[in-house]
Amino acid sequence: MLAEIITIGDEILIGQIVDTNSAWMATELNKIGVRVKQISSISDDREHILKALKEAAGRAGIIFITGGLGPTKDDITKKTLAEYFSVGLVENKEALDNVQRIFERYNRPLLEVNRLQAYVPANCEVILNHNGTAPGMWFNHEGVIYVSMPGVPFEMMYMMEEEVLPKIKSTLELPAIVHKTILTVGEGESFLAERIADIENDLPAHIKLAYLPKLGQVRLRLSGFGEDEATLQSKVDEFAARIIERIGNVFVTDQDIALEKAILDKMTARELTLSVAESCTGGYLSHLFTQHPGSSAVFWGGGVTYANELKQSVLGVKSETIEKFGAVSEETAKEMVQGALLNFKTDFAISVTGIAGPDGGSADKPVGTVWIAVAGPQKMLIKKFTFGNKRRQNIERSAISALSMLNTLLT
Amino acid sequence: MLAEIITIGDEILIGQIVDTNSAWMATELNKIGVRVKQISSISDDREHILKALKEAAGRAGIIFITGGLGPTKDDITKKTLAEYFSVGLVENKEALDNVQRIFERYNRPLLEVNRLQAYVPANCEVILNHNGTAPGMWFNHEGVIYVSMPGVPFEMMYMMEEEVLPKIKSTLELPAIVHKTILTVGEGESFLAERIADIENDLPAHIKLAYLPKLGQVRLRLSGFGEDEATLQSKVDEFAARIIERIGNVFVTDQDIALEKAILDKMTARELTLSVAESCTGGYLSHLFTQHPGSSAVFWGGGVTYANELKQSVLGVKSETIEKFGAVSEETAKEMVQGALLNFKTDFAISVTGIAGPDGGSADKPVGTVWIAVAGPQKMLIKKFTFGNKRRQNIERSAISALSMLNTLLT
Repeated sequence: MLAEIITIGDEILIGQIVDTNSAWMATELNKIGVRVKQISSISDDREHILKALKEAAGRAGIIFITGGLGPTKDDITKKTLAEYFSVGLVENKEALDNVQRIFERYNRPLLEVNRLQAYVPANCEVILNHNGTAPGMWFNHEGVIYVSMPGVPFEMMYMMEEEVLPKIKSTLELPAIVHKTILTVGEGESFLAERIADIENDLPAHIKLAYLPKLGQVRLRLSGFGEDEATLQSKVDEFAARIIERIGNVFVTDQDIALEKAILDKMTARELTLSVAESCTGGYLSHLFTQHPGSSAVFWGGGVTYANELKQSVLGVKSETIEKFGAVSEETAKEMVQGALLNFKTDFAISVTGIAGPDGGSADKPVGTVWIAVAGPQKMLIKKFTFGNKRRQNIERSAISALSMLNTLLT
Repeated sequence: MLAEIITIGDEILIGQIVDTNSAWMATELNKIGVRVKQISSISDDREHILKALKEAAGRAGIIFITGGLGPTKDDITKKTLAEYFSVGLVENKEALDNVQRIFERYNRPLLEVNRLQAYVPANCEVILNHNGTAPGMWFNHEGVIYVSMPGVPFEMMYMMEEEVLPKIKSTLELPAIVHKTILTVGEGESFLAERIADIENDLPAHIKLAYLPKLGQVRLRLSGFGEDEATLQSKVDEFAARIIERIGNVFVTDQDIALEKAILDKMTARELTLSVAESCTGGYLSHLFTQHPGSSAVFWGGGVTYANELKQSVLGVKSETIEKFGAVSEETAKEMVQGALLNFKTDFAISVTGIAGPDGGSADKPVGTVWIAVAGPQKMLIKKFTFGNKRRQNIERSAISALSMLNTLLT
């Protein structure tokens, strides 16, 4: 079954908000075997909405529409849907009860404009909105299902989870769909593709392989489509196993999680602790770890030693080392990571020191020069990188490279 | 001028990544007076791409296409564009030189599949990609401009900033457009609106005011549209000055920059230094500062003291304080900020300690409880916040609140 998502409203088109709703909906739909063919963000404009609905109905069997259901003038989704289906608007008792209940709960008078929220196109089935006054709507028109929901994320999510997804599963006959993601780090897309070319060629037509590269990482995603979920799962798992065996040295995890989360999981399982000594990454590496719930079991913290004074006072880097070799050097990276192990008393530590740019480079140490050290109880890895001249990318690449080195040390 | 954005690739359609590219592009395009009519995310499918291009060309004068330019089999944008324009693919020397340069820089052999990246549709003008091997492409076909770029955000952004946006401005006759952004922190949208209602009523039809709220901050953006840029600018400046005068206490800057950048600028001008003691923000606050070039003049670094052991060893928080009052307490926040000032020897310091969640809350200290202290040579501010139960939001709100308090202390 193919679906389309249409978001209505100017906020996305002027870049004021990022469309996170569609990604969430797409994820949930994929899980139940509904494939999203297209996601379109369009303006609050009658003709544009009518055209987008017609185009979508030509491609998909179910169309999700979010936004444009508020009580104000610029919210025209409802009357445009009525026009699209050539029906009138009628007051819906359930929807009105819901509006009244919400206003009573907040002890506010019901204005005429709020009462209008209970009017819906005559051909719709109302989907109750427990978190707001705008009702959701389900239409079945000439063989295509249309679902209209508010754009407010938590109203939409609750409606999808509680009402819409169960209704889709009971209404439609859906094929099975299975995804498996393999995270790799440290090898480019084309090199990976060459290494697994024969496996890719063996893939049957109903299993697809996608390469999803991102800053030093490549995700390989196998997607299987078919009738029987168990058979599909075992087939996808079989190919995943072949790929993982082939690319063992750059393999991180077969879960669809972030690199640092995979490392946290490994270290949690082995009851290991970690600290950092960050210079050019300036807290970003710590942030990557600490954004994940439960990271405190592994990640004890560390120093953001941006100034040389702090490299000395917090990490115990010797002033002669900095004078002789510079803050961006193998020797400083080494003393930083040793200082982290010693002062923060963790099993493993990472140090990063480099020139993020755009200033601070020199002929022998251009912007993008970064030294990274990772150390554990037995072993230390230390490596020089030469990235580009974009500060943000240098920070991100440094962090990903440090994670990659730590992953190697843990393997 | 109307534009459309088409993103090609399954990642967005299966919800694996959120489409942040389009929001960024829409923001940049709006700044130069190009309005985005529709944003569409479509699959790596030949027919679908051809249809989407045709539909977009019926609505807009300039079409931005991202994604599907990688070297692997599932990347079919280039050959589909060639088919759309009824031309062949030809090797482009500049693009090949770029691919070779990148491979030489990383000292890796050039594979045949990489060489193919230098092939482009015969009717295109190549836009060099300084950060990757896939060239950007600019087409002018039957009065519509098509710009194809890689989907990797930093490759696309760099290409847009350095090549595409300047080329659009020099190629198209765009109306004059002037923006001025006023950053405020600590007051809600509706309260601000009430305070400046009379000024807003005075605005002429060609100057618009938008409220852009985001996590404790509200940006007021004045946009003037017209013929003569100088007249527009002075009119917009006049209204900006009236607004700033009115909302003095919550005003941060009249530059379109981030809150932490405004603070860095203020501190740089006054030659002040800053350090941090982060617990629940886990490096995020440091990262906010250090992502900006030149931050090292002000920001010396600090401690990410996630574990209590580090709060003691790095910051000198007393173990009795943690035992008696807890790690999330006024007393601990105070000792953390004092420890930062003492150990890191900066003029100002910030400390943040809280329960980011989803676990770790209790009846008297629920998830979202955060203590923040900011201290300077003469004064300390210390405050308790009760945010929600979403980890990511708690981290971000804590950081923004800390910045807001530091801004107050500096004013």
